Amino acid sequence: MEGVDHLAHERNKSEFDVDAMKIVWAGSPHAFVVSDRISKLVASDPGFRKDNRSTLSRKELFKNTLRKAAYAWKTIIDLHLSEEEAAKLRFYVDEPAFTDVHWGMFIPAIKGQGTEEQQQKWLPLAYKMQIIGCYAQTELGHGSNVQGLETTATFDPQTDEFIIHSPTLTSSKWWPGGLGKVATHAIAYALLIVGGREQGVHGFIVQLRSLEDHSPLPGMTVGDIGMKFGNGAYNAMDNGVLRFDHVRIPRNQMLMRCAQYTCLCMPSDAKLILEPCILIRVSQVTCEGKYKQSDVPRQLVYGAMLYVRQTIVADASCALSRAVCIATRYSAVRRQFGSQNGGPETQVIDYKTQQSRLFPLLASAYAFRFVGEWLKWLYADVTQRLQANDFSTLPEAHACTAGLKSLTTTATADGIEECRKLCGGHGYLCSSGLPELFAVYVPACTYEGENTVLLLQVARFLMKTVSQLGSSKKPVGTIAYMTRVEHLMQCRCGVQRGFAELSADLVEAAVAHCQLLVVSKFIEKLQQEIPGKGVKQQLEVLCNIYALFLLHKHQGDFLSTGCITPKHAALANDELRSLYSQVRPNAIALVDAFNYTDHYLGSILGCYDGNVYPKLYEAAWKDPLNESVVPDGYHQYIRPLLKQEIRTARL
Amino acid sequence: MEGVDHLAHERNKSEFDVDAMKIVWAGSPHAFVVSDRISKLVASDPGFRKDNRSTLSRKELFKNTLRKAAYAWKTIIDLHLSEEEAAKLRFYVDEPAFTDVHWGMFIPAIKGQGTEEQQQKWLPLAYKMQIIGCYAQTELGHGSNVQGLETTATFDPQTDEFIIHSPTLTSSKWWPGGLGKVATHAIAYALLIVGGREQGVHGFIVQLRSLEDHSPLPGMTVGDIGMKFGNGAYNAMDNGVLRFDHVRIPRNQMLMRCAQYTCLCMPSDAKLILEPCILIRVSQVTCEGKYKQSDVPRQLVYGAMLYVRQTIVADASCALSRAVCIATRYSAVRRQFGSQNGGPETQVIDYKTQQSRLFPLLASAYAFRFVGEWLKWLYADVTQRLQANDFSTLPEAHACTAGLKSLTTTATADGIEECRKLCGGHGYLCSSGLPELFAVYVPACTYEGENTVLLLQVARFLMKTVSQLGSSKKPVGTIAYMTRVEHLMQCRCGVQRGFAELSADLVEAAVAHCQLLVVSKFIEKLQQEIPGKGVKQQLEVLCNIYALFLLHKHQGDFLSTGCITPKHAALANDELRSLYSQVRPNAIALVDAFNYTDHYLGSILGCYDGNVYPKLYEAAWKDPLNESVVPDGYHQYIRPLLKQEIRTARL
Repeated sequence: MEGVDHLAHERNKSEFDVDAMKIVWAGSPHAFVVSDRISKLVASDPGFRKDNRSTLSRKELFKNTLRKAAYAWKTIIDLHLSEEEAAKLRFYVDEPAFTDVHWGMFIPAIKGQGTEEQQQKWLPLAYKMQIIGCYAQTELGHGSNVQGLETTATFDPQTDEFIIHSPTLTSSKWWPGGLGKVATHAIAYALLIVGGREQGVHGFIVQLRSLEDHSPLPGMTVGDIGMKFGNGAYNAMDNGVLRFDHVRIPRNQMLMRCAQYTCLCMPSDAKLILEPCILIRVSQVTCEGKYKQSDVPRQLVYGAMLYVRQTIVADASCALSRAVCIATRYSAVRRQFGSQNGGPETQVIDYKTQQSRLFPLLASAYAFRFVGEWLKWLYADVTQRLQANDFSTLPEAHACTAGLKSLTTTATADGIEECRKLCGGHGYLCSSGLPELFAVYVPACTYEGENTVLLLQVARFLMKTVSQLGSSKKPVGTIAYMTRVEHLMQCRCGVQRGFAELSADLVEAAVAHCQLLVVSKFIEKLQQEIPGKGVKQQLEVLCNIYALFLLHKHQGDFLSTGCITPKHAALANDELRSLYSQVRPNAIALVDAFNYTDHYLGSILGCYDGNVYPKLYEAAWKDPLNESVVPDGYHQYIRPLLKQEIRTARL
Repeated sequence: MEGVDHLAHERNKSEFDVDAMKIVWAGSPHAFVVSDRISKLVASDPGFRKDNRSTLSRKELFKNTLRKAAYAWKTIIDLHLSEEEAAKLRFYVDEPAFTDVHWGMFIPAIKGQGTEEQQQKWLPLAYKMQIIGCYAQTELGHGSNVQGLETTATFDPQTDEFIIHSPTLTSSKWWPGGLGKVATHAIAYALLIVGGREQGVHGFIVQLRSLEDHSPLPGMTVGDIGMKFGNGAYNAMDNGVLRFDHVRIPRNQMLMRCAQYTCLCMPSDAKLILEPCILIRVSQVTCEGKYKQSDVPRQLVYGAMLYVRQTIVADASCALSRAVCIATRYSAVRRQFGSQNGGPETQVIDYKTQQSRLFPLLASAYAFRFVGEWLKWLYADVTQRLQANDFSTLPEAHACTAGLKSLTTTATADGIEECRKLCGGHGYLCSSGLPELFAVYVPACTYEGENTVLLLQVARFLMKTVSQLGSSKKPVGTIAYMTRVEHLMQCRCGVQRGFAELSADLVEAAVAHCQLLVVSKFIEKLQQEIPGKGVKQQLEVLCNIYALFLLHKHQGDFLSTGCITPKHAALANDELRSLYSQVRPNAIALVDAFNYTDHYLGSILGCYDGNVYPKLYEAAWKDPLNESVVPDGYHQYIRPLLKQEIRTARL
């Protein structure tokens, strides 16, 4: 029965133009074409296979990742791929690797914080991968609190060098990807000390390993920090530990980009909001040992943070949609209970309990896609403004980016695990793809701003806004709604008082604000023209599901503030049930619109043709335990049990 | 600084008698003594070490599990351990293994469903481990729906045998632990066919492998189903696949226990509630091919299900308390932000956001402990009643057990992951113990009754109860509260109508019912005398936290039904904050009361002495990747990149 589409009956049911929806999902016809071509290229190349990932030992897995990274680079060169295509290829290879950090953090840090000369010296090497970089910020004792980093960089005017040192155990660099075994260079962050004075945390380019034999340079103790969550996941990455023992680097390896444009003073309330985030400094140290703080660097560093976080929001919709695609297809294949007169059992996707868990996640995947698009626009907008010395929207952009990073990553991690549970027992098998997807995704809740810390920053922004409501400064953009809330208009008390005491409640307020943001951007998306038969109607249904699902989940907040009555809540719930019925015939087509290859999905349960059971059966036999019929260990450990010879056995 | 207790300052703060609390947690002084002795015995024996688990390949891990199982058995024999002590030893070895299924399912099935002769023949062999058994129920195509099992057992009167056969791919046995590589025998469930008539699903004792050379017997295709979630976790277990090709077994290997006591008819409403659960039949087939359904067997099978589920509730409190212990200790060690004048930073346990996530989980661990104790009592009570032909409490006992299994396992799985996130980045390391704890625990949400399916059974019970409210049959026990709800008293409509349509809402109602159960059993516990200075006061605080946390989380339900006003909700929230402050100084002592060894916790972040950072640093170097300074793969894959020789490299 090779080649039969077991989900054809589902696809025939759909009421909209799937190809048009694919364009909407991709963002543009161009984006669709590139994604489609590159994903199929990767899927069809056995050099990129990943179905063996879960059975490899740590060393085998890591070596295989090195091979894939090299092979990807060779493919990029051989096929003359553009930068956009190369990035897509790395994306579809779908395995954490040192190259992520090299391209995604090392190079951007030099571009953002390096001087012209530094850029001219280091970037061409990095672009050709003649050096491989990592980003050594976090330490054993400090993650969120970047200002607390303990590594020191002491300027020695005698030799015109910095002495990089790890004074304590907790100052050991810890977590940087690519550091453990691969990177030749690092951007290392350290507390700058000039003339005995501490000048805050700065970035330094430090060579770690010999370019000849890859051995660590003198004064460096470097290694891998060990196994992480999941079978494959981030175990393909050499997250590393690094200790400096008075390592000397030339002065010109401190990142000290000068201001390129005159700085207008940042408005003070922007500073208030941003203060906890702007921690890394870009300054200059002269050969005489004079420290000069540069004028606009903080915004540059800040821009990089916004950039990374908005990509994380975009990635959330990818990860969640993958899990939803798997769970939706499998829910249509799987049948359990309800057989009538010997006929087939009920597809589990037809159970209301399944729908009420699955369809809000499907709606969330679309919602996150569109808010991610908007955030990309917001980033471009704020960057343009910063270049024109307009800082006015920076606090809002920060709050949006931080809040949406937190909201979407938490919802996505939870959603992947929910999808895994929706696949029942088989979801627990690695061949379902979902354990790997969860384990590789979930650190997004912690890295690049721990999610609760970020929500507190949003809360601070909201409280600041509320405190100004009575003044002449009217809130605009995503917080304009606040002027319409009478209750808030009456709040005049000092919002800083009691912040820490009430922080758990403030976090809930921040989440509500971010949810409003997602809903309103989904609605704005629907106000645009969207071509394709039935496409807009489907999106309207999903938008309503997303909004009403949140209302149902948080009905306590709506009821206690008098925004809705119990009757409204009940009506909303009725409407939700009706919306699930409308999604049902389109569910498979709505996940087909993601246009994921079976390779990228990496899941037997989610395979396009729905031919789940033969594939599960076949995959089982590939486990290493099945290499022999009688397992290794039988003679030493099982037979002595059965033969009652255990007391004399050597164990 | 070996031997320094970094948490001593926390322990000195506590306001209650920790030793007395340890007895409360253990359940009795005797239970404490046994647990304490056996856990220390396991912890001190290098034969049971588990810190290397995450780096082993599948085959190494599995072989190591075989070794540990044999070693545990040898220890049990050498030390003449009692049955209670042996069970504790297997518990503290803390690794899924074929022995779990042998002792926990194979032997109980024979005891519960086998005839006297069957028990006399098979149990002595099983008790001495001269045979090793597994429990082959689920199939590739059927999990929850046991009635849908496709494996057939056709009686052949010519030879007085059953022919066991797998007629379809989806009828392949799939998931049974111990089946893949170890078990010599199985209790296999199959659709009985006698004289051409299907007689429902029955259990059969089937030998799988030769007792001489362990090779599968003719007609058996058997193997491992492959990797599962997590590094170690259930990959230590050989969950298996099994296909029968017309395998013949003697008639006397069908489990056909006769009724031991006269059967009173089960009340019809008990049947209604229990119908979906009682699926496995125990009957007799005579040598002439006559099928005789026995009279009370269903209750026997049913009792076994109650038993297994109540142990799962007890296990939930163990797993959750482990995670909470780790997260609480690490939250007291970890400091971030808030340094004043160069002093130490703030312990993260002092942040209200941390407390509002952690302390409800601490309270839940205690709450689940006590409801588990009550469920154990309930099981004993219902067993006694069944033996006296009293079925009256069976539906309620079923609903309580099913509902609490669902509630506690879902909350525990989510709670472990929440604890992992509360440990920040380091929680993602395997050395934190939390990834393993999650991966090994989470299948409890799916096995022995999928959690949503179970809640629907509870909902059915509740609806049945509501429909009878107007009648003379007054609800008693855990549903007595319903007579006090006026709104419910007015419900007379047919509750079966619309059940499927409203099932998502009914699941929410079932959860609420179960939460009430947990809270009320916690309160009942506090009405007993509890010795020890301050012990009862601490438990009262935890009970209030558990109850108010649920009220806060589900305030929408309370508000929409008019049970509370928004003002009440706000007051409850204020009270919750105050309770967190009361727990704070006692937090470390409250997790010390679990009396877990560092071995059992298996977490560097949760180690008793709080000496986290040196241990993390030391553990890192044990990763296989650190065996060589320059990684395997450097010459083939990294050097060609750096030297720009990638186009000609062999990849």
